Amino acid sequence: MHGYAGREMAVHSSTLQPRVSFDTSPEKYRHWKLTFDGAVATLSMDVQEDAGLSPDYRLKLNSYDLGVDIELADAVQRIRFEHPEVHAVVITSLKERIFCAGANIFMLRGASHAWKVNFCKFTNETRLAIEDASANSGLKFIAAINGICAGGGYELALACDELLLVDDGNSAVSLPETPLLAVLPGTGGLTRVVDKRKVRRDLADVFGTVAEGVKGRRAVEWNLVDAVYPTTQFRDRVAKRATELSATSDRPASGGGISLGPLNVSISENALHYSSVSLEIDRVRRVATLTVKAPEGELPGTPAAIAEAGDQFWPLRAFRELDAALLHLRVNEPEIGTIIVRTTGDPAAVIAADDVLLAHRDHWLVREVVHFMKRTLKRMDLTARSFFALVEPGSCFAGSLFELALAADRSYMLDDPERPNSVALSGLNGGPLTMSNGLTRLETRFLGTPERVQEVLEEREPFDPAAALDAGLVTFAPDELDWDDEVRLAIEARAALSPDALTGMEANLRFAGPETMETKIFGRLTAWQNWIFQRPNAVGETGALTAYGSQARPEFDFNRT
Amino acid sequence: MHGYAGREMAVHSSTLQPRVSFDTSPEKYRHWKLTFDGAVATLSMDVQEDAGLSPDYRLKLNSYDLGVDIELADAVQRIRFEHPEVHAVVITSLKERIFCAGANIFMLRGASHAWKVNFCKFTNETRLAIEDASANSGLKFIAAINGICAGGGYELALACDELLLVDDGNSAVSLPETPLLAVLPGTGGLTRVVDKRKVRRDLADVFGTVAEGVKGRRAVEWNLVDAVYPTTQFRDRVAKRATELSATSDRPASGGGISLGPLNVSISENALHYSSVSLEIDRVRRVATLTVKAPEGELPGTPAAIAEAGDQFWPLRAFRELDAALLHLRVNEPEIGTIIVRTTGDPAAVIAADDVLLAHRDHWLVREVVHFMKRTLKRMDLTARSFFALVEPGSCFAGSLFELALAADRSYMLDDPERPNSVALSGLNGGPLTMSNGLTRLETRFLGTPERVQEVLEEREPFDPAAALDAGLVTFAPDELDWDDEVRLAIEARAALSPDALTGMEANLRFAGPETMETKIFGRLTAWQNWIFQRPNAVGETGALTAYGSQARPEFDFNRT
Repeated sequence: MHGYAGREMAVHSSTLQPRVSFDTSPEKYRHWKLTFDGAVATLSMDVQEDAGLSPDYRLKLNSYDLGVDIELADAVQRIRFEHPEVHAVVITSLKERIFCAGANIFMLRGASHAWKVNFCKFTNETRLAIEDASANSGLKFIAAINGICAGGGYELALACDELLLVDDGNSAVSLPETPLLAVLPGTGGLTRVVDKRKVRRDLADVFGTVAEGVKGRRAVEWNLVDAVYPTTQFRDRVAKRATELSATSDRPASGGGISLGPLNVSISENALHYSSVSLEIDRVRRVATLTVKAPEGELPGTPAAIAEAGDQFWPLRAFRELDAALLHLRVNEPEIGTIIVRTTGDPAAVIAADDVLLAHRDHWLVREVVHFMKRTLKRMDLTARSFFALVEPGSCFAGSLFELALAADRSYMLDDPERPNSVALSGLNGGPLTMSNGLTRLETRFLGTPERVQEVLEEREPFDPAAALDAGLVTFAPDELDWDDEVRLAIEARAALSPDALTGMEANLRFAGPETMETKIFGRLTAWQNWIFQRPNAVGETGALTAYGSQARPEFDFNRT
Repeated sequence: MHGYAGREMAVHSSTLQPRVSFDTSPEKYRHWKLTFDGAVATLSMDVQEDAGLSPDYRLKLNSYDLGVDIELADAVQRIRFEHPEVHAVVITSLKERIFCAGANIFMLRGASHAWKVNFCKFTNETRLAIEDASANSGLKFIAAINGICAGGGYELALACDELLLVDDGNSAVSLPETPLLAVLPGTGGLTRVVDKRKVRRDLADVFGTVAEGVKGRRAVEWNLVDAVYPTTQFRDRVAKRATELSATSDRPASGGGISLGPLNVSISENALHYSSVSLEIDRVRRVATLTVKAPEGELPGTPAAIAEAGDQFWPLRAFRELDAALLHLRVNEPEIGTIIVRTTGDPAAVIAADDVLLAHRDHWLVREVVHFMKRTLKRMDLTARSFFALVEPGSCFAGSLFELALAADRSYMLDDPERPNSVALSGLNGGPLTMSNGLTRLETRFLGTPERVQEVLEEREPFDPAAALDAGLVTFAPDELDWDDEVRLAIEARAALSPDALTGMEANLRFAGPETMETKIFGRLTAWQNWIFQRPNAVGETGALTAYGSQARPEFDFNRT
C-alpha cells in the first residue's frame, strides 16, 4: 500500500507514487489562519474537513494529516523570516469547543507503514522547529487551548513554551493513543511529558492511559498545562501573557522581513532541478544523485545587502532547495535508497559566504539563515536513506557544504595526482550547525579524539586527499585506478542491502555521543512507535487502530514483549 | 509460536509454555569452562552443539542460545561473589579458529518475536553486568579473540575492557547482521562501537556492512580491537596483560568468597514461593502478585558476620529471589501483563539492613551485595510488564524495598485512619541503587523538582498516607471506602490495554532524564531491533533471516522507511 494520492496531486508517471509538494504560502492555506497584531501573531487552526490529502478520510474536529502540518511548518518558517516584528505566537483553534483532535485516525488506519513513519517524522520536525524558534530566535509560543486537546493536538501544545487551558468543564488535555488505538503518542508526546514538562513518571503513566485526559486544576497540579482560566477570562489572559512574553524578545521592534518566494524548480520524471540543487534519479539502480552548487558572482557582505538579496541570498536559497529535495525524496521516492552527494563550484565562494554569516550571526536575519541551514542538515541526518559523498575534482565540499560530507554515512575522495582535489573547513563547521545530539558534526565524528576538532578547524588551507584521509575528514581516498570500481561496487552493495536494517543501523550510528530530548524523540520514542505500527495489536485485522470507528472491538494477543 | 521447550525442561501444565530455569552452577555448565590461576580467571567458551535449549538447532561454531548465556551470566556473578581473589577475567574460546559466531541464527529464525526480544534483553543485561563489574568491582575483562569473532561474539568482546585479537590471517571481528541477516547487531553492538569504542561513524558504517569483518592492523587502526598479536605470541601477551590489569584491582588479595547456593523454591502451577519472595498468578485476570518479605530475626552487622551468613544474608537472598522471579515472569509467563507489587514485614528491619550495607559499602562483599541489588532493580525497570505497588497496612515499603514502589509504574497507598500505614526511606534511596540512566529512582521521579530529593531523604520518620501523597512518594492514596474499587478498576483497566502499546509507553516514561550507553542500548538500539524483528525483509517468507542457510536468496521490498 502506498501513501495518498490526493485529488490535487500530480501522479508520478512511472511508479504511481503521489507527488506531495511541501511548497505553500499563507494565501493558499486551507487549514490555518495566520493573523498579526503588533508583536503577536496568531496561528488559528481551522481544518477544512474535505481538504485532506486524500478523499478517503474527512479531517473532522481539527484532526490533521500531512497537508495540515505542511501549512503549519510553512507558517512558523514565514513568521521567522517574514515577520521579525513578531515576538510571540499564539496557537489556537477557530472551532467551537475543540482545540485539536490530533492526527486523523482514519488517515493513519489507511496509510502504509512508510507513510505513517514519514508523516510522524515531519510532524516531529515541525514541533522541534517551534522549539528551535523559541530557543534561538526570540519567538515565544503559547498554546491557547480553547477546547478539547487530544493526542497530536496536545503534542503540538507541548511544543509551545506555555500551555494555557480554558476551564469550561469540558476542555481537557489527553494522550488517548494507548487506551484507544494501541499506539503511542509518537509525536514527542511521551518524551515531552516526562523530559520537557518533567511530569512525574507515575502521573504520566496515569495520564497516558486515561482516554478522557485531565482537565482543570489537576492538569495544572500535574504540570500538564501551565494555567487554566475560566471561559470569560480566557482570551484576555492569553492576550496578556502573549504581550508579556513578546516583551522578552530580542527580535527587531519593527519591519524588515524578507519574503520567501516559491522555489524555482523544473521537474521531470527522473529529476528535480532547482537553481543550486539538483536531484537525479536512476530507478534501475535505486540511486539518486543530489548535487549542490556553490554560489556564483557577487555575494552580499552586510546584513542590509543580505536583506536586499532576500530569498535569493545563496545560503538561504540553496538550503531551501536542499530541504525541498530531501522532503521530496522521503515522501515521493521511497524506493530510492542510496543517495550520492556531490557539490560543484568555487570553494572560496562558500567559505566567503560562511564568513559573512559568522561575522553577522547576531543580526536577526543572518541568525535565521544559519538556524535554517542547521535544521536542513538535521533533516538530512534524519532522512532514512544512505548518503555517500563523492569528493571529486571540481567539487566544492567546503565549509557549510562540507557538512554534507560529514552528514553522509561515508565519503570517498578521489586521489589523482593529475587532478587537484580538496576539501576545506570554515568557521561554520566549528559552531552553529549542530546536530540533534547538540554536538557539531565534527565533534560527533571525533568523539574518540576530541583534540582533532580544534586541529582541523585551525587548518584553514584546503586538505588534499592524503591530508583529508590522514585528518579523518573522509572515509576513503582511492586513486584513479581504483576509483571507478571501488565507488561503483560500494554503491551497488549498499543498494542491495535490506532497507530496514540500514534504517536501523544508520539511526544508531549517526547519533553517537550525548542524547537530547530531540534525539530521544527520534531514537527511543520513534523507534518504539515504528515497532508498534507493525504490531498486530495495533494494525492487524483485529487491532485497535484497525477497529477504531467501526462496530468491532479490538482483540489483543496478550503476550507481553 | 512460543519459545523453546528444551529436552530437559519441565513443561508448564496449564499453558504448555516451556519453563526455563536461570539457576545453574559451574559443575552443571555445558558450554563454558571456568578456571582459575591466582588473580586471573579464564572463562572459555566451548559450546556443546547438541545441548541447546531446543533440539531444533545445533549450536555450531560457538554460537549461542539463551542457555549458553545463562551460564555466562552465572559465571560472572559467581566470580564476583565466590572469588574475590580474582581481579581479571579472560574470555576466550576452546574451539579451533573460532572465538564465537554469535547468536545461533537457526534459533533466532525459529523463535517467536517475544522470545527473540527477551533473549536479546537477557544477553544485553549479561554484557552490562560485565561492564558493571569492571566499573564498580575492580574486575577487568579481556576478550582474548583467538579466532573468528562474529556478530554477538564481537558484541560479547565489546563488553570487555580490552579486546586482543590474534593476527593469523584468518581471525576477524565482524558485525555481519545487516548484510547477512537484515537485522541489527542488537546486543549493544552498534551502540558500543560508536559510543564506547568511539569508532568514527563512517568507519562504523563500513564495518557494519561488510560481512567478512575487519582483521589485523586495520582492526586496531579503526579501534575495533586494542591490539593484534601473532599466533605464536598470543597466549603470552594475553596472560601478561591479564596480570597487569589484575594488579589494578582493589579486590582482596586472597580468599573469603561466599558461595551462592541454589535458591530454595517451591513451584506449583500458579505460584513460586521462595523464602522471602513469592509470585502468585491469576491467569484469568492475567495478573500476578509479587510479594517481598522483610528480614526476620537477628541481622549481621559487620562484614565478617555478613560473610558468615553468606547467601542467606537477607539483602542478597531476597534480591536473588526477586531476580529469579522477574526472569521467570519474562520468559515463562508472557501473558501475565500486570504485576501487583506487595511487601510485608517490619520496616525497621529493612532500614537496619540498609544502614549496615551503607556503613560497610566499601567492603568488597557488601559492595557486591549492593550492586547486585542495583542490577536486580534495573532488571525490574527493564521488565516489559506493568507494575502497580500496593501500599497497605502491614506492608514494608521502606528503604531498599521502597525502591520497588519507585520502580513501579504507579503506587496506591491505603489511607485508612483506623489502620496505620506508612512508607519510609533509608540512605540506600539516596545513592547506590541507580537506574540505567545514572540517576536514582528518587532523582528520576523528581526531575522537575530536584530539591525534593534531599527533602524527602532528610525525613527519616515514616510517611503516613497524607504525607507520602504530599511528598510525591505515592501516586494515589484512596481511603478505605474507595480503595477496593479504585485498585480493582485500575488493575482491570491496565490488563485490558494492548500489551505492545504498554511496553512502548513504559519504555519511554520510565527513563526520563539523561541517557547513558545503557539506556541507549535498551531504548534506541533495542527498539529499532524489535522493529526490524517484525519487518518482512528480515522475518517474512522471503526475508533474509528466513532465507539464511537455505538455497533461497532473500528478496527485499526496497521501500525505505
